[in-house]
Amino acid sequence: MKKIIKAGMLGIGNVGRGTYQALEMNRHKIAESTGFDIEIVKILNRHPEKNRGIDIPKEKYTPDPDDILTDPEIDIVIELIGGIEPATEYMARAMQHGKSVVTANKAAIAANGKKLSRIAQENHVLLRFEAAVAGGIPILTSLTTALLSNRFSEVHGILNGTTNYILTQMAQYGKSYEEALSDAQAKGFAEADPTADVEGLDAANKLSILISLIFGVDASPEAIPTQGITKVGSADMVFAKESGYAIKLLASARESDGKVYGNVEPVLVPVSHPLASVGNEYNAVFVTGNAVDDLMFYGRGAGPLPTGSAVLGDVIGVARKLEKDSAYDIVPQLRYDSDPPFAGEGESKYYIRMMVPDRPGVLGVITTVFGQHGISMETIQQKAPYEEDGERVAPIIFIVFKTGKARLLEALEAIKGEGVIKSVDNIMRVEE
Amino acid sequence: MKKIIKAGMLGIGNVGRGTYQALEMNRHKIAESTGFDIEIVKILNRHPEKNRGIDIPKEKYTPDPDDILTDPEIDIVIELIGGIEPATEYMARAMQHGKSVVTANKAAIAANGKKLSRIAQENHVLLRFEAAVAGGIPILTSLTTALLSNRFSEVHGILNGTTNYILTQMAQYGKSYEEALSDAQAKGFAEADPTADVEGLDAANKLSILISLIFGVDASPEAIPTQGITKVGSADMVFAKESGYAIKLLASARESDGKVYGNVEPVLVPVSHPLASVGNEYNAVFVTGNAVDDLMFYGRGAGPLPTGSAVLGDVIGVARKLEKDSAYDIVPQLRYDSDPPFAGEGESKYYIRMMVPDRPGVLGVITTVFGQHGISMETIQQKAPYEEDGERVAPIIFIVFKTGKARLLEALEAIKGEGVIKSVDNIMRVEE
Repeated sequence: MKKIIKAGMLGIGNVGRGTYQALEMNRHKIAESTGFDIEIVKILNRHPEKNRGIDIPKEKYTPDPDDILTDPEIDIVIELIGGIEPATEYMARAMQHGKSVVTANKAAIAANGKKLSRIAQENHVLLRFEAAVAGGIPILTSLTTALLSNRFSEVHGILNGTTNYILTQMAQYGKSYEEALSDAQAKGFAEADPTADVEGLDAANKLSILISLIFGVDASPEAIPTQGITKVGSADMVFAKESGYAIKLLASARESDGKVYGNVEPVLVPVSHPLASVGNEYNAVFVTGNAVDDLMFYGRGAGPLPTGSAVLGDVIGVARKLEKDSAYDIVPQLRYDSDPPFAGEGESKYYIRMMVPDRPGVLGVITTVFGQHGISMETIQQKAPYEEDGERVAPIIFIVFKTGKARLLEALEAIKGEGVIKSVDNIMRVEE
Repeated sequence: MKKIIKAGMLGIGNVGRGTYQALEMNRHKIAESTGFDIEIVKILNRHPEKNRGIDIPKEKYTPDPDDILTDPEIDIVIELIGGIEPATEYMARAMQHGKSVVTANKAAIAANGKKLSRIAQENHVLLRFEAAVAGGIPILTSLTTALLSNRFSEVHGILNGTTNYILTQMAQYGKSYEEALSDAQAKGFAEADPTADVEGLDAANKLSILISLIFGVDASPEAIPTQGITKVGSADMVFAKESGYAIKLLASARESDGKVYGNVEPVLVPVSHPLASVGNEYNAVFVTGNAVDDLMFYGRGAGPLPTGSAVLGDVIGVARKLEKDSAYDIVPQLRYDSDPPFAGEGESKYYIRMMVPDRPGVLGVITTVFGQHGISMETIQQKAPYEEDGERVAPIIFIVFKTGKARLLEALEAIKGEGVIKSVDNIMRVEE
């Protein structure tokens, strides 16, 4: 029989719904990979009458946090209320009652991480917060597992999707800051009061956590010099574009001469740098380690499901630690159990470059035979003919709509049979 | 007293040296973070007389694999010989002797992963191979820990640095394939016989491992349709550039209608896609999960130290599992123990945009005051003056060499005091 890990969740806002939904979607896979079932058995919800747009059995709701924080049946408390208090107090209380805690709460961890870590250690429980920095991107897990064999000299993060969306829109479409901001608000990427995002405060909270993890240095968000993007104007965008830069709100820290420096501010990043091509609402974290060298993680830094993915990843990590028997789990696990087996390369758009003799009717034959094989053209480009080995030839490039490669090769053989191809010089897939 | 984890290493080639060196460099940090010391106590080396360019005590060398595979003192065997045999046999034997195994061997895992996983399970030991796919990039660890809460619909990897270097050089500098290849060979990115790289075989091995991990499907490297880059010509590069594509050798797989498809081939990738901007010898893996959505990992896919970082990450992971007492380790661990404390924002190149009155001598005053504060100019750009509020003004943009921000602000105050600045409109850091 499968072991059941019971979790209680504080809060059922966007991230709460995303976490619940990610679990429902992937329950089977998680159980298959880990050998245990995770169940969210109770949810703190002070307004059970509110329609949350998700199907959750009403009996899971409780208006009383202590119902969750002190329930001896609950192994893990998932804190998704946000804000420093009462979230910190709830997390502390849960750990004092022997429960491990998973949170997405950057403000509470940045403000009280030291205290909460101490409480976790004193009570022999776990405290995890992958979702607090860069949403779905597994940066904290990577830094503290696979990358633990490094000392890091610097970290640069695009840690706020709202500001990155605004800056990208200003750069790409010449929008003003105000236009880009209202656009972001309309799309749900910015809140009605955007202060925490556009002034860099959200990014400073996340940088504070990264600085502690990477450098072991206490840099409270208030101690981090922070400048937002409200002063970035189109004159700056024009200069940046002309001079080979992208403007990004970077949260950066580095160690140099035994000191740790860091700040949040708009930065001119050379377009050749990987961070320069991180566009719109995406986040990225770039780190440099003394063994692994440069490394960048790119993904969604917000949104219910991506953040839920990180929360749930932490819950699984905690559950694995709780399950002593899993000490010999094979991670990563090679699986060869799926049915049906591997199906080859499937269908795709294709690019074909060929050389044809320069005479009338050639293109007609080619397109007819492609048509007979059910292959249709997206674009055709013929270059100027020239003399080669005493014959006038012309290069032609086709892009054809989705087809199987076997069928494509068959059609090309048939066309060769018609004597209208000198050579097929290259075939490549076209990614849509 | 610290617990010592003893490892034996098979092979002391490039990756072996990188692993040993990464451990020497970061021993203190690893011990601090995990509570145990890792020691490589024996190394299989059939040519101990050869100078390996690294300082390793000679008594660690042994010419006999059994000295390592059967030594009851050794907890972990690190396999870095490469090739399918005898590496597979050695790994099997180590596990049958109760040792966990860490390997960087893509060929052996792609060919014999199923068998080796079974042997690991039967013997209650661990088998890890993060370094076998994409070198230093922690993709396997992430997929099987923080991202376990996802089902993945597709994966696209730039998994071979040699071919990516060649394609990048062809695209950026108009080099021919042959020129780019000899350039790669001169730089040490390509071997004298480049077949395994340029024909896509190396990437197929890595894709085989990813397909098993992500989709649970058995796709042997031989079963994966594989096309290399030898047919990519400058005509293709020109077309791609004109049409908004980059050409990348992609190792791709996707699940669709319950079937898993995949192949290795050169692909036209839209320039707006994050994979398009992965240049030169870098690798990247792009995955799409049903909760986390799009995610990309970017970094070095080869090289002694980056690969050693991944090997050592696995060794630490195994050691943590072996140490039952570490079940309540705090991972990630918030540390606030470093001395000296956070040092603020440090020095940087800066961009300053200001508005000045359009009259003679203004620029002279500004540069003089900057000079008095020890700040020197990299570039100055003055735009055409115009009328504003009944006064002729001109925007000026400076980039100044490395300076502290406090000093910069002080200089700007002093310049304001001279009456030659209307307003300072924006200050941004310039990343070098």
